[in-house]
Amino acid sequence: MKSKGLLVVLSGPSGVGKGTVRQALFATDHDKHQFLYSVSATTRQPRPGEVDGEDYFFLKRSEFEQMIEEEKLLEYAEYVGNYYGTPLEYVQEMTEQGKDVFLEIEVQGALQVKRRMPDGVFIFLAPPNLRELESRIVNRGTDSEEVIAKRMQQAREELQLMTQYDYVVENDSVDKAVKRIQTILDAEHLKTDRFIDNIVESYLQEGEE
Amino acid sequence: MKSKGLLVVLSGPSGVGKGTVRQALFATDHDKHQFLYSVSATTRQPRPGEVDGEDYFFLKRSEFEQMIEEEKLLEYAEYVGNYYGTPLEYVQEMTEQGKDVFLEIEVQGALQVKRRMPDGVFIFLAPPNLRELESRIVNRGTDSEEVIAKRMQQAREELQLMTQYDYVVENDSVDKAVKRIQTILDAEHLKTDRFIDNIVESYLQEGEE
Repeated sequence: MKSKGLLVVLSGPSGVGKGTVRQALFATDHDKHQFLYSVSATTRQPRPGEVDGEDYFFLKRSEFEQMIEEEKLLEYAEYVGNYYGTPLEYVQEMTEQGKDVFLEIEVQGALQVKRRMPDGVFIFLAPPNLRELESRIVNRGTDSEEVIAKRMQQAREELQLMTQYDYVVENDSVDKAVKRIQTILDAEHLKTDRFIDNIVESYLQEGEE
Repeated sequence: MKSKGLLVVLSGPSGVGKGTVRQALFATDHDKHQFLYSVSATTRQPRPGEVDGEDYFFLKRSEFEQMIEEEKLLEYAEYVGNYYGTPLEYVQEMTEQGKDVFLEIEVQGALQVKRRMPDGVFIFLAPPNLRELESRIVNRGTDSEEVIAKRMQQAREELQLMTQYDYVVENDSVDKAVKRIQTILDAEHLKTDRFIDNIVESYLQEGEE
């Protein structure tokens, strides 16, 4: 049975290694998945060699603002005077075809996507020491109060962000992070909700004939 | 970091092969998991060779009814004049110790457990043809109306049950079913909720010292 693809959102603190993990995931020969990387739209000028529709959808400012107006973007942001965003249509078409679409975006964008597509799979890529929070807290006696306060503050902020995501994947090594993400996606394809949605859809399609 | 164990409930239609899959899962050397099979309580007489606390907790009828009264059972049923049930305390103790506890029970029991422990992992073991529902429906022109009606009825009943579960695992082969269950458990251990619960718990424990 052909099942609907997943929208997979990989996000996390800046500098955690999202791009590296995404590239390694795409390079892995994982026969069950056909990952597609969602092509973003932008108003910035193409750089030499960049291809429209492959690297980005290059749009005029007025075109981009019309897409915002018409709610045709899953998320968008303005950065150094240019817009960047994720076109909704591409994601919908590809998942309908049974393909898993991958977004690798910053935390703010991920939370926008979550509001629009809550049934996506939201993965928080965590710095390698986040899972050691417990021992860091337990061993706090060995550090100055200032260091401890800073750590606790950082931990609190990271936890706050994480609560919005479905899964936490520690990036202690790229290979391990990739394996964990593959495991998550395999399991997500076995979720009852997704299975039932697909069957109900096939009933409905039958009825239309 | 030591994380809390999972309560894993494997259930499905009678005759689907729950026992075989469970035994194969336990026999598999899967280093990350320490599966424990939850010992049931019963009022029936021990058979020769059965050990109290290993095969069953053998109880008097009055003891069992007191456990029902005090809500110390995750689920129970009466069968041929004897009670059978799952003691709550064992499941709680083992998961606190970071062990995954496995229940292999009938559908009615599973739904009772779900009401008491909704954060368990509920897996529906499906007969091998359930995932072919779509093609069965599409190809219905080749069968008599009676056969089709019967199939549709069966499909509806199975779907109805499945909606209560988190995952659907097809038992097309025992090895594949075991692999899928392992994948689900690996992914469940990466769930943000479980991760955050563990951290929050460690904060609280710190506060108590």
